Amino acid sequence: MSAAVSPLAPRRTPAMPVIEGVRIATAEAGIKYKGRTDLLTMAFDAGTTVAGVFTRSKCPSAPVDLCRQNLPGGSARALVVNSGNANAFTGTRGRESTGLTAKAAAAAAGCDEGEVFLASTGVIGEPLDAGRFTPLLADLVRDAKLDRWNDAAKAIMTTDTFPKVATATVKFGGQTVTINGISKGAGMIAPDMATMLAFVATDAAIAAPILQGLLSRGVGATFNAITVDSDTSTSDTLLMFATGAAARRGVAPITDSADPRLGAFRRALNRLLKALALQVVRDGEGARKLIEITVTGARSARSAKRIALSIANSPLVKTAAAGEDANWGRVVMAVGKAGEPADRDRLAIWFGDTRLAVAGERDPAYSEAEASAYMKHDEIAIRVDIGLGRGKATVWTCDLTKEYVAINGDYRS
Amino acid sequence: MSAAVSPLAPRRTPAMPVIEGVRIATAEAGIKYKGRTDLLTMAFDAGTTVAGVFTRSKCPSAPVDLCRQNLPGGSARALVVNSGNANAFTGTRGRESTGLTAKAAAAAAGCDEGEVFLASTGVIGEPLDAGRFTPLLADLVRDAKLDRWNDAAKAIMTTDTFPKVATATVKFGGQTVTINGISKGAGMIAPDMATMLAFVATDAAIAAPILQGLLSRGVGATFNAITVDSDTSTSDTLLMFATGAAARRGVAPITDSADPRLGAFRRALNRLLKALALQVVRDGEGARKLIEITVTGARSARSAKRIALSIANSPLVKTAAAGEDANWGRVVMAVGKAGEPADRDRLAIWFGDTRLAVAGERDPAYSEAEASAYMKHDEIAIRVDIGLGRGKATVWTCDLTKEYVAINGDYRS
Repeated sequence: MSAAVSPLAPRRTPAMPVIEGVRIATAEAGIKYKGRTDLLTMAFDAGTTVAGVFTRSKCPSAPVDLCRQNLPGGSARALVVNSGNANAFTGTRGRESTGLTAKAAAAAAGCDEGEVFLASTGVIGEPLDAGRFTPLLADLVRDAKLDRWNDAAKAIMTTDTFPKVATATVKFGGQTVTINGISKGAGMIAPDMATMLAFVATDAAIAAPILQGLLSRGVGATFNAITVDSDTSTSDTLLMFATGAAARRGVAPITDSADPRLGAFRRALNRLLKALALQVVRDGEGARKLIEITVTGARSARSAKRIALSIANSPLVKTAAAGEDANWGRVVMAVGKAGEPADRDRLAIWFGDTRLAVAGERDPAYSEAEASAYMKHDEIAIRVDIGLGRGKATVWTCDLTKEYVAINGDYRS
Repeated sequence: MSAAVSPLAPRRTPAMPVIEGVRIATAEAGIKYKGRTDLLTMAFDAGTTVAGVFTRSKCPSAPVDLCRQNLPGGSARALVVNSGNANAFTGTRGRESTGLTAKAAAAAAGCDEGEVFLASTGVIGEPLDAGRFTPLLADLVRDAKLDRWNDAAKAIMTTDTFPKVATATVKFGGQTVTINGISKGAGMIAPDMATMLAFVATDAAIAAPILQGLLSRGVGATFNAITVDSDTSTSDTLLMFATGAAARRGVAPITDSADPRLGAFRRALNRLLKALALQVVRDGEGARKLIEITVTGARSARSAKRIALSIANSPLVKTAAAGEDANWGRVVMAVGKAGEPADRDRLAIWFGDTRLAVAGERDPAYSEAEASAYMKHDEIAIRVDIGLGRGKATVWTCDLTKEYVAINGDYRS
């Protein structure tokens, strides 16, 4: 783990309110790390609905398999997350481990095993000894408290240098509902999903299929638009829980996808998902620059996103950013290699407000000094206009530094 | 440019014979570099045929456009290559520059402009002032000599730490024909093509369409099976010239694709292409390890190659190699993210002769000490069996080191 907090960490951490119906506990189970928490449990009130989005890896972890199996039930009572071991590529022992954990969590929470959700993050391929923490679960669920969201964010960290939290409120007429979320990165991050875990909860009452629709649509421009290193994890998991506790305060449940309150809820949720996703990039391993890449004028939004990700994943673009070099020629290269429709002689490229290239060559008015000064900022915006259509997309990444190599050259040993 | 020669450089450099019909000259044109050659010309005897393979970038350089335009003529009399400036994304001025160069080279060689081939390598987006070197071409062509293949390899280097040459001979009955080649890397290297330039010549007489068939088939398992950083250049160019000078010694020209001599010629050519391609990887920017990745048991050869490249391009696999960490979990990750058919529970992974994973989990007989000792070698072989079919592919890459970041963080400034 890195010692120093990322220079891109948010200046302010929001005060995290409670979410009625979500009780949280953490513990030091000593799975890999010493002297820090590595186990998180959330206990949800009866009636909590759940939605989830997972890695598209063909080699998913055992906890991802279990979540996918339980998701169609639509009901959640317990979440157990450990850091330090991903329980991925662990064969039959991996399935035994998730089975034991689900059983112990269900006993602790007094629920069905199908209402338990799991996530694990850390090294791949090492068997996870669930016996290290299953004996703790009964006490944890019993002692769980409402106001421990910051503790929750800390317990799921791996190479993260700061805990990631976000909160939002939504007005439903005279009533307010709250959404909280936590996430973790910070390497093996690429879209579909970013290699990360994130857990979101609200006290609104929302039927599971509607919750799933909100989450599935919400990830496109947030968690599926970030990349640190193009490496998709086996374990990416985003789960969302709706406890419905607000119904006790008279907030009517949302059971119809045409409910007019959904618009405001969706906007708040998407802002929160974006805040959590960008914190993952801000904590990208070794990152010193946050890079926002916007592609306009592509043949389609899908094409724009592919071009934007080709730029965002280019080691040469990312090392140039690390070196504070306004090397727009590498952006041209990355557009060219994306395999998407592009016409060299229609391209235009901006770094911040400075147009560096236009109509297939260097902008005649281009000032190297101005562009170089811009590259010294912590946050860099690159815009490319393809000049062919109306497709548009924005993605986020970070620079590629020697520190990334150092962190990943001796993570496991 | 890096000061030190790559530790992976070949121990022995072959003595390069002459190729009858190819005369070579180099010069210090001061395009970007000082105190070294940066301009190469080759003059070919009348009757020389030509074949070429180029980048698949949608934003190719002006010289690539010119070569593509001249290739259908099938005839070559002059090659002009400069290093220090790629003449890529240079708009109308780029086309003017290639036009002026072709005109000057044609005048110098006494040939048609359509028999001139060009390549440029270096920074993208800076106008290339052809006037710096066009006045030199007449003297260069006049003074060109047969025995300057090593000089040729030096003049085309950019961040390369050693010149790349290879030679082969083929017996045609009692007669011998020779093939020589040079190449350069060393970053912005990814298949289709690798970001590189390579020039191959033979004294055999081979009709242009047959030469093109040999070259197009030859790149699949050689230049299109290497990657340094997944970044495809705008300028990738592989040209092959057949002077036919051997015909004067009585070696009959090859004009029929069923000519029985083609088998031996193809095998020699493919060995030479592989030797040149592997030297590019051995000189990958910052490389300290050569990594050979073989995927077997995939659904098809195409699928195997995609999986192999997903492993080869993974920053996490490459940083693990740099850290001498036998982190096979990251290989699982890279198989999973390839998007190709794979079944987690059938995967097996070897590092060298040591099987680390089998049937979806860590090999019970796996020795960490043995695997760690293996990772200290300069050359690492990773093999993955997918367990689904008979598709097979091998690709080569290098590790990702802090030196790569250093080289690319301040290349342009």
